[in-house]
Amino acid sequence: MSDRNIVYIGNKPIMNYCLAVLSSLQGDGSTVHLKARGRAISSAVDVAEVTRNRFLKDLSVDSIEIGTEELENQEGQKRNVSTITITMKKG
Amino acid sequence: MSDRNIVYIGNKPIMNYCLAVLSSLQGDGSTVHLKARGRAISSAVDVAEVTRNRFLKDLSVDSIEIGTEELENQEGQKRNVSTITITMKKG
Repeated sequence: MSDRNIVYIGNKPIMNYCLAVLSSLQGDGSTVHLKARGRAISSAVDVAEVTRNRFLKDLSVDSIEIGTEELENQEGQKRNVSTITITMKKG
Repeated sequence: MSDRNIVYIGNKPIMNYCLAVLSSLQGDGSTVHLKARGRAISSAVDVAEVTRNRFLKDLSVDSIEIGTEELENQEGQKRNVSTITITMKKG
């Protein structure tokens, strides 16, 4: 997983991330990883679905992994946040 | 996929759904499907992670599928919504 083929999903408009996915696939790579945490997980699924249905018909979901990360805030309190990694393949 | 082993995730507290997952696994079944749409997708991942990490250590993610559904509102306008199905297995 090189940095170049990872798209981190946050709270920008879905289309921004769709463009990032498409431009990541313009290079040599035929694989792209969408990564998101917490509330942005729903957006990661939106990005995968919109890119695949509207822009790149030969893109398919290769694997989906979920997990938990421990975050520490400025007061040193720890809380768990869910994560998702959606791996998509071209062709 | 019988109705009994599907848990639909909405906007109630995560723990409500964790309990639903646990009670669904009390019966004969060793498999449970978590289903969610739109913003509730993040909560479905939370439910899977919390149940697995805190309540039932021998529960694991069997498969995750994403998709798109077309919803029609009262004015007849159609919009797409993303969906997720997380299948979990005991033992």
